[in-house]
Amino acid sequence: MRHLLDTRTLGREDAIMILDTAEDMSATQQREVKKLPTLRGKTVVNLFYEDSTRTRISFEAAAKRLSADVINFSAKGSSVSKGESLKDTAQTLQAIGADAVVIRHPASGAPDRLARSGWIEAGVLNAGDGMHEHPTQALLDAFTMRRRLFGDASRGRDLAGISVVIIGDIVHSRVARSNLWLLTALGARVAFVAPETLLPFGTREWPVTVHHSLDAAIAEERPDVVMLLRIQAERMHKAFFPNEREYARNWGLDEPRLARLTEHALVMHPGPMNRGLEISSAAADSPRATVLEQVANGVSVRMAALYLLLSGERGGTA
Amino acid sequence: MRHLLDTRTLGREDAIMILDTAEDMSATQQREVKKLPTLRGKTVVNLFYEDSTRTRISFEAAAKRLSADVINFSAKGSSVSKGESLKDTAQTLQAIGADAVVIRHPASGAPDRLARSGWIEAGVLNAGDGMHEHPTQALLDAFTMRRRLFGDASRGRDLAGISVVIIGDIVHSRVARSNLWLLTALGARVAFVAPETLLPFGTREWPVTVHHSLDAAIAEERPDVVMLLRIQAERMHKAFFPNEREYARNWGLDEPRLARLTEHALVMHPGPMNRGLEISSAAADSPRATVLEQVANGVSVRMAALYLLLSGERGGTA
Amino acid sequence: MRHLLDTRTLGREDAIMILDTAEDMSATQQREVKKLPTLRGKTVVNLFYEDSTRTRISFEAAAKRLSADVINFSAKGSSVSKGESLKDTAQTLQAIGADAVVIRHPASGAPDRLARSGWIEAGVLNAGDGMHEHPTQALLDAFTMRRRLFGDASRGRDLAGISVVIIGDIVHSRVARSNLWLLTALGARVAFVAPETLLPFGTREWPVTVHHSLDAAIAEERPDVVMLLRIQAERMHKAFFPNEREYARNWGLDEPRLARLTEHALVMHPGPMNRGLEISSAAADSPRATVLEQVANGVSVRMAALYLLLSGERGGTA
Repeated sequence: MRHLLDTRTLGREDAIMILDTAEDMSATQQREVKKLPTLRGKTVVNLFYEDSTRTRISFEAAAKRLSADVINFSAKGSSVSKGESLKDTAQTLQAIGADAVVIRHPASGAPDRLARSGWIEAGVLNAGDGMHEHPTQALLDAFTMRRRLFGDASRGRDLAGISVVIIGDIVHSRVARSNLWLLTALGARVAFVAPETLLPFGTREWPVTVHHSLDAAIAEERPDVVMLLRIQAERMHKAFFPNEREYARNWGLDEPRLARLTEHALVMHPGPMNRGLEISSAAADSPRATVLEQVANGVSVRMAALYLLLSGERGGTA
Repeated sequence: MRHLLDTRTLGREDAIMILDTAEDMSATQQREVKKLPTLRGKTVVNLFYEDSTRTRISFEAAAKRLSADVINFSAKGSSVSKGESLKDTAQTLQAIGADAVVIRHPASGAPDRLARSGWIEAGVLNAGDGMHEHPTQALLDAFTMRRRLFGDASRGRDLAGISVVIIGDIVHSRVARSNLWLLTALGARVAFVAPETLLPFGTREWPVTVHHSLDAAIAEERPDVVMLLRIQAERMHKAFFPNEREYARNWGLDEPRLARLTEHALVMHPGPMNRGLEISSAAADSPRATVLEQVANGVSVRMAALYLLLSGERGGTA
Repeated sequence: MRHLLDTRTLGREDAIMILDTAEDMSATQQREVKKLPTLRGKTVVNLFYEDSTRTRISFEAAAKRLSADVINFSAKGSSVSKGESLKDTAQTLQAIGADAVVIRHPASGAPDRLARSGWIEAGVLNAGDGMHEHPTQALLDAFTMRRRLFGDASRGRDLAGISVVIIGDIVHSRVARSNLWLLTALGARVAFVAPETLLPFGTREWPVTVHHSLDAAIAEERPDVVMLLRIQAERMHKAFFPNEREYARNWGLDEPRLARLTEHALVMHPGPMNRGLEISSAAADSPRATVLEQVANGVSVRMAALYLLLSGERGGTA
């Protein structure tokens, strides 16, 4: 792999290769071989134009376990986030010999632009760009589904036949978008559940079923996986919800809804959760919930992505 | 050791074990073997909810000398310091495989809560919590006393019979509290010297003699160690001191007082000092002063604490 | 070398030794041996009192390629930048065992003060102080000139006979000052080009020719190297320039001027560039431009400086 920019253009085979490599990484971690010499001498730069300590330390831990050197570059503020500065910054990173750049940026498409600019030879890893994509989040979600649903039989498998329902603030969510493309490539069936005001324009042209009612979605989709998105108060208000109780009543995964899920169904959330809003404590703390596994699997998936970008020869697919 | 949360519950034997391990670490550093492979593959997270560059880099240097990977996590601001977020953050640190969490937090008891929460398996090291404790500061102070007073005969010893006088803003000082408990466990005799307004409610129930007059304390306690605390202007005013000169005249370690100390008495300060306020330049620069040794010993003590938490089997006392 | 504080007192021999060592470092990097064990166990502290991500990550990458441990210490704000605090900070760095301190400070002379204070044994590397000096920038500029002009015959050479013209905001530029001293020591001939308002008082006593007209300077100096400085809008206005177009017309390196340079002449810029202001895109993107090589060479030069400060015995020149 040359870069990891999105899941929309990631083929089924590449996706399975990443997930299988993450299985190897995860196995290594569990055997208490915490430090691998694989990327010794490589330099990974975390180039963050938005605050996200959780994602940054996940990538940092992944890179350090592979013995790479990590340089953190926090670039907030309007002056640095302008186009010219991205170029300047990229050229600096090129010149200091960065082998991979993990970029988070408020502008959709910034990682793509960086990768295709010719400014830099480093592999580019999208750690979230605007409302566009967050591919490693989708990969860790898919990894978590595969592990939970198929256990030791996960390796080499896709998610054919699995039904996934994603609920909440779809319009602002790069996680929802990345999951849609990846899950579709892996053969899963995806449904979005949201009020009309929280659905992106054009959703109807995507390979997804849309529901406005969570109760209807649970009844009709019979989901194997229910994925809640974090709702932000200011966006909830823009979507004409009078208050949190009203939102939770309509779209929250409460106990009655939890009870209506099929026995093996998973409850996923990218974190951090708003308990009592999009997810009840009963759901968050139930054995179906995978929130912490998702975070742990995030390190394995990011180790896999860094490994595939940085070891062996460079060049090849997207 | 499982965690290092306070000195109040730290027994004499454990305290001496930490101090003796710090002697080993200090000896290694002096032999120019600056990097030990001991904690290779371990991940230490510095989780700082308050700014404290001095303490952070002391822990960072200690961890790196033991070859651990260090991830810095600066979490200031009200949104992150709320209870729910500490849980979220802890679970993230757990999931990325943190082996030790060094936490500084403005809320007393936060490290304790983190350690006992079940959110995390990592060893928790309190780097200062509210007005509660700062155990590694007390340990480096005790280490410095032992070294200075007993030299090469330090190993295995406690501080029985030593008289320590701690002066200044006791009420706001986690350093004073941690020192009181540790020094008492090690057999030293402790006195506090402060105006009534800078003494915590309940001091009289602690194993400490209280003085209001520094001159009386020097005469009556015949201290082996005089420890000054940093006074902050805004707190001094709240304690009804009209100005710095008045404070220094009453509670500062000036030259006449310095001259009345016994010949071998040490002058300690956790730094940074307000010269001319709680300590005169003559005292700060005298050969009795241990300020810089305290900082250097801080690295050895923190190496010892990290080593004891992270090597060998986990579980056991405190 | 004991410290690297300026280029004004750096002799020709020491300068050539640094440049030759940087050649070795650069050769190593090109052979894909990215990580050298040379400084294993050494601790390099980046002590930055001003933001400068580009310079900080260049030093960080240089130190990590030599296997040193790096501790970043960002110290902005008035309270830390006061005199007493520099002392406190220095003593902390001494006590934690820093081997080298890379310091950037808004006050001219701060690195010098740190080095000569006796507060610290570490080698001090000036990464830019006020309007005084930025020696590693001048060294990487000289390295870039030597490489471009003499290629494989660079080693051991000085810059005798080379004509360098430096254009723009000289008065605020530590880069211009450091270049003047270093280039003069290496035998080059230096000219400044700027409006009177952007020239420092006393320039006429320096070993430099002064021009007000860029066209005249190009005609009379026949430069081998044209070095543009970054102009900042607010300073441009203080220098009585009505607008950017007017500045560019008078002092910018536009296409007609580029065409009048001798065939082999280099176009240098410390970055980041204001395209269309001090430099046209045609000039910035021409094969004469060395902007990216300068950044890449910066890592080699900083590796050389850290190596010379930290390996072998300490003490000696500069």
